[in-house]
Amino acid sequence: MNNNLLVGQSGGPTSVINSSLAGVVKNGLDSKEIGKVYGMVYGIEGVLKDNIIEMDKFTDDNMIKLLMQTPSSYLGSCRKKLPEPEDDPEMFAKIFDYFRKKEIGYFFYIGGNDSMDTVNKLSRYASSVDYEIKIVGIPKTIDNDLAETDHTPGYGSAAKFVANSVRQLSLDGAVYDKKLVTVVEVMGRNAGWLTAASALAKDEQLGGPDIVCIPEVPFDMDSLLKKIEDLSKVKNGVVVAISEGTKDSTGKYLCEYVSKQAANKDLFNHVSLGGAGRCLENYIIDNFGFKVRTVEFSALQRCFALGGSLTDVKEAFAVGFEGVELAKKGMTGVMPGFKRLDGPDYKIEIVPFKTSQVANFEKGIPAEMITEDGYNLNEKFREYALPLIAGEPDLIYGDGLIKFAVR
Amino acid sequence: MNNNLLVGQSGGPTSVINSSLAGVVKNGLDSKEIGKVYGMVYGIEGVLKDNIIEMDKFTDDNMIKLLMQTPSSYLGSCRKKLPEPEDDPEMFAKIFDYFRKKEIGYFFYIGGNDSMDTVNKLSRYASSVDYEIKIVGIPKTIDNDLAETDHTPGYGSAAKFVANSVRQLSLDGAVYDKKLVTVVEVMGRNAGWLTAASALAKDEQLGGPDIVCIPEVPFDMDSLLKKIEDLSKVKNGVVVAISEGTKDSTGKYLCEYVSKQAANKDLFNHVSLGGAGRCLENYIIDNFGFKVRTVEFSALQRCFALGGSLTDVKEAFAVGFEGVELAKKGMTGVMPGFKRLDGPDYKIEIVPFKTSQVANFEKGIPAEMITEDGYNLNEKFREYALPLIAGEPDLIYGDGLIKFAVR
Repeated sequence: MNNNLLVGQSGGPTSVINSSLAGVVKNGLDSKEIGKVYGMVYGIEGVLKDNIIEMDKFTDDNMIKLLMQTPSSYLGSCRKKLPEPEDDPEMFAKIFDYFRKKEIGYFFYIGGNDSMDTVNKLSRYASSVDYEIKIVGIPKTIDNDLAETDHTPGYGSAAKFVANSVRQLSLDGAVYDKKLVTVVEVMGRNAGWLTAASALAKDEQLGGPDIVCIPEVPFDMDSLLKKIEDLSKVKNGVVVAISEGTKDSTGKYLCEYVSKQAANKDLFNHVSLGGAGRCLENYIIDNFGFKVRTVEFSALQRCFALGGSLTDVKEAFAVGFEGVELAKKGMTGVMPGFKRLDGPDYKIEIVPFKTSQVANFEKGIPAEMITEDGYNLNEKFREYALPLIAGEPDLIYGDGLIKFAVR
Repeated sequence: MNNNLLVGQSGGPTSVINSSLAGVVKNGLDSKEIGKVYGMVYGIEGVLKDNIIEMDKFTDDNMIKLLMQTPSSYLGSCRKKLPEPEDDPEMFAKIFDYFRKKEIGYFFYIGGNDSMDTVNKLSRYASSVDYEIKIVGIPKTIDNDLAETDHTPGYGSAAKFVANSVRQLSLDGAVYDKKLVTVVEVMGRNAGWLTAASALAKDEQLGGPDIVCIPEVPFDMDSLLKKIEDLSKVKNGVVVAISEGTKDSTGKYLCEYVSKQAANKDLFNHVSLGGAGRCLENYIIDNFGFKVRTVEFSALQRCFALGGSLTDVKEAFAVGFEGVELAKKGMTGVMPGFKRLDGPDYKIEIVPFKTSQVANFEKGIPAEMITEDGYNLNEKFREYALPLIAGEPDLIYGDGLIKFAVR
């Protein structure tokens, strides 16, 4: 009887993806109906290369706690996109031979929409060959662009890093009695959720972003520069938060305005971006001669466990834990996600969504959360996002350095 | 009788410069011999432009607490370097007329070595015109390059940000089963203290920087690239921490190797730097074709109160507080600094140093703290720096956002 559990992590790291791993592993180890708990090293590559490890050390709750505060991917990750089963039946046969050999009856894949695509393909193939296995996707992405679920684990902590960083940079940028434009470049190819989080730092006294450019709203260079010029007339420190994926109405990225680099396409046909901030910096200097500084959060925004959101850490654990519950109830091809309940206080329920409805979709910011001029977020966004960054985790330090679990 | 107190902040912001301000203000407000407590807005410019404010709201200890966790400069700052009193007697006469008018008997200037130069000039001028005033410099700089004092407030928190960020980036960089070089560019023109702090993250399991380039050690492009190549043969994720001021034996900056921009000189004849990281990135790609990512901490490293060092926050407050004590004892032209006491545990004593011995010097990392090959720091540095990043401040948040004091 196949009752072992295999869990893996895929796609870009977040600061809470290991908290979801902890949730899966904790429930797996505590469940009588589940045998051994294995982790695949470097995602599905670990299955293809016979590189999996036993997760026994996490019977110790202190190790679970340490894992929960560890950013990046404890098991290692990959960006492998599986082909359609019909296009490469050999690869799928190899994967399922391995499952058979290791007696895998539970398979969990923690990732974004590309990973849900993997879950979807594996679960379709399993039923086509009558292999008894529960295959569940566990959501994660700092991009918050997964369909169906109210929000995605990983977003809250990244959003909190962005909001608090922009708040601190606003103070820093106002320190001299001089005009200074701070341009902050935030990750986000097609969805502006993370850049939008900078708007949470907006405060009459403390500053925050004056302009927020997101991919959902086509930008116009002339009106953007005009807005910056107007703001600089009434205040010293102007702060512009800009998504790496900011583009104009023809679909041309802001970063292409100067760099004109041919857009490199990666394996998933996502355009590899960068440089929107510095590009805008050049335009501002060319037009106005203001002092401009560009800050790129780069990988920090996805790995900064220090300063994360307690709500996010807890919810990430919960979707991992609940994913195992769904599998034990016999569900497959599903992803546990969040349904926000009505009422004055923030409350969520974890419910299963079909991965076929999640895979390969990207959910952007709805128009109703964007200000009329398109260059900021409104109160509706604030109501949506503020609860997600609430609470501060109590972290384990040693000698001033945050401690982490490593395999 | 001139018994009012005037305090100002100068130079680049740090995440604890306001903690020193809190120390000065707290002691000033609580001292019977001191009258009103004023703050100059934008440093000495506030004196020249009659822009000072009363600090009464800090009689409330909750406001002191909030001020202590606020990064940047509460009062605003400037980079004005005063001329020699002999070269511009009018400016000095204007400053002292203002002191007379506002009955200033205590003057505190929180800053780095350029600010100590200001303190030194003002206190020389005061004695030349027989104006009774105590002029005290309060040390701050993330660069840790002030002479005489064991270390400088501001360094510990910035060092902690750098160390924890590099630790987290190391994990993030090891996530895929692929070669990746992470280049981290850290602030530091002539002193490598802050870049060196990345070495505190070094850990056999958790990674940390494999190579640390500091301005104190002339780099050689060929040997540096060879080192990176050798490391990449034995591990996937190679981490290089590099100071913006890294230069070769001829004094040519690393960032000049490609960019060839004429070095812009700012008001203090410091060379305006940037781009060492990306320059090295280009060299690595040219030579080896590895994937490289460059992370510039930019202003974040000097304003990230979230994740600061409790030791640093407390010591910054203490030098401010003790500065007022020195002034009350009649001392002038001095700066309270740290003397590290012998013994197994970290202990410091706050002692006065003459600002004439501090001004305009820059203290680099001594050779005994650097590894033989010059590309890393040794145990001696670790022993020196680890106590400075110890402890985590308990911060006041509201809705997931860190709260700050603003004027």
